[in-house]
Amino acid sequence: MSVVAQVVKKFINDPDNVVPEALAGVAAAHPGLVRVDLENQLVLRADAPVQRKVGLVSGGGSGHEPLHGGFVGAGMLDAACAGAVFTSPVPDQMGAATRAVDGGAGVLHLVKNYTGDVLNFRMAAELAEDEGIDVQSVVLDDDVAVQDSLYTAGRRGVGATVLAEKIAGACAESGGSLVEVADAARKVNDRARSFGVALSSCATPASGSPIFDLGPDEIEVGVGIHGEPGRRREKHASAHDITEMMLDPILEDLKPASGSSVLAFVNGLGGTPLIELYLLFNEVNRQLGDRGITIGRSLVGNYITSLEMAGASITLLVLDDELTALWDAPVKTAALRWGA
Amino acid sequence: MSVVAQVVKKFINDPDNVVPEALAGVAAAHPGLVRVDLENQLVLRADAPVQRKVGLVSGGGSGHEPLHGGFVGAGMLDAACAGAVFTSPVPDQMGAATRAVDGGAGVLHLVKNYTGDVLNFRMAAELAEDEGIDVQSVVLDDDVAVQDSLYTAGRRGVGATVLAEKIAGACAESGGSLVEVADAARKVNDRARSFGVALSSCATPASGSPIFDLGPDEIEVGVGIHGEPGRRREKHASAHDITEMMLDPILEDLKPASGSSVLAFVNGLGGTPLIELYLLFNEVNRQLGDRGITIGRSLVGNYITSLEMAGASITLLVLDDELTALWDAPVKTAALRWGA
Repeated sequence: MSVVAQVVKKFINDPDNVVPEALAGVAAAHPGLVRVDLENQLVLRADAPVQRKVGLVSGGGSGHEPLHGGFVGAGMLDAACAGAVFTSPVPDQMGAATRAVDGGAGVLHLVKNYTGDVLNFRMAAELAEDEGIDVQSVVLDDDVAVQDSLYTAGRRGVGATVLAEKIAGACAESGGSLVEVADAARKVNDRARSFGVALSSCATPASGSPIFDLGPDEIEVGVGIHGEPGRRREKHASAHDITEMMLDPILEDLKPASGSSVLAFVNGLGGTPLIELYLLFNEVNRQLGDRGITIGRSLVGNYITSLEMAGASITLLVLDDELTALWDAPVKTAALRWGA
Repeated sequence: MSVVAQVVKKFINDPDNVVPEALAGVAAAHPGLVRVDLENQLVLRADAPVQRKVGLVSGGGSGHEPLHGGFVGAGMLDAACAGAVFTSPVPDQMGAATRAVDGGAGVLHLVKNYTGDVLNFRMAAELAEDEGIDVQSVVLDDDVAVQDSLYTAGRRGVGATVLAEKIAGACAESGGSLVEVADAARKVNDRARSFGVALSSCATPASGSPIFDLGPDEIEVGVGIHGEPGRRREKHASAHDITEMMLDPILEDLKPASGSSVLAFVNGLGGTPLIELYLLFNEVNRQLGDRGITIGRSLVGNYITSLEMAGASITLLVLDDELTALWDAPVKTAALRWGA
């Protein structure tokens, strides 16, 4: 059943100016932490470039906040490139970010697997290499919902991006080489899987109307962070059953050994209240326990969102001592902060 | 114009069991930080009671997360009492919390000004005093939107509660006496004012339907955190104009001296994307600048919410050196953390 599209009200001035105005807000809110290059739409660590530290650059379409700008700071990203809403940044932005964070130890690009992002980051990396900057790239593709999708060849990159930014960021902060920092990010991608479910659509500021239709009793199982279709439409179900719909394909693909310890990340897509995310976390905890898997670390909240979409995703990362230590290391960003 | 009520989809199992299941999730997600008393629906600091430290207790209806359970931990609350959604906790819960956090230096109750909360906390305080626990209470009433409201005599308590919990918590952590800690909270309430605007309604898990109707082009100016009516309905407007609608009554009541430095808190009501909150923060920064007021500290995000309501509130707190130092002091909670 299709629902008549309604205008979604937003706090904006000009639909074409949402990203720069929000970035100006970020600059005003976090003056000691970041600086903003408005021309290139970059959020930069205030003290970038940090000499002799590997620089970490990520970026992508806007509308997923706090990803990526909220993760810029000591122990995580050195720069985030903001594209238009749900649109890849351009190579020039990525090149400017790469130059701005190059402290002589090379720069790592952390790229979510969407065709535009991958192509543009590749072009930026080639240009930077021509300028003598050593660049490596790691592409995140943790979403097990679909093999290929509307905007990707292969799986989409979602929640593991947050974990890779934190863990690779900690590795860089502790003096890791470019190869070591890239390996840390790859290790996260190898050991993490995600799956998302939408209860509602979302609307870009440019259109103001829901980007897809969901019936009043339908959910989108396996949804992407731009509202891309998932595996199937289902009737709305209990939190218990929805958690199972998410955990089953994650565990089938990840195949963690019984007795494994995981980082369990329950992420809100933007419009779901925190009380429901904690209720989902309780389900995740119980259902993993039933399967002999322990939650060693956790993250619950809105970290990689899809504007005001009601929905959630689960990401599991199989921990080891190295990943746990890097996760626990101090971090100081607008959206993730501890020990600093 | 009225919109036909639609069922709002939620991640729940049983509408009557949402709060306990979410609290079990909080316990599972933050084992080193808090412990949860499921029988009394309390979130307690893991190491409570802290001997010779003033204990801080707050609480209220659920549905405003992370308030209050997300603010339990070192440097902020010792306990949070969770009522049913949008319903005051009962005196027994508050009494159990008071006993659990009493380390011999007395206990402060931080109470948002809603009739149920005020009466129940008063009863709990009297019972605790009878048991020999020294209790003081501070009632927060920072919302300038309406003088009396659906659930209050006098103004409602909203965003200043978060600031008072942080600042009084820091005072307690640094060894402040019960009188000093209560004075710090009162000082926050005296120097802070708030105002909220809703772009959409929200639905409790029990009803599943929007608790009020807003036309597709209407906003509720001065809304309360339970969807209580505000001052008036208006046509939806630009972020610039809505910010002015919020700042004008705040500044009219607060009357900060030109040259004042404020903590500016732009709070999401639950369903508004972070990109819009930062865009609003940019407006707040510009409009305060035009009036000769400087933002000395900031907080942007979903901290005192109204389930999935789309909307935002602004709270301004006039800073001085003491408040700034207490704000900057280390805090270690699920929702607010720095320096620890």
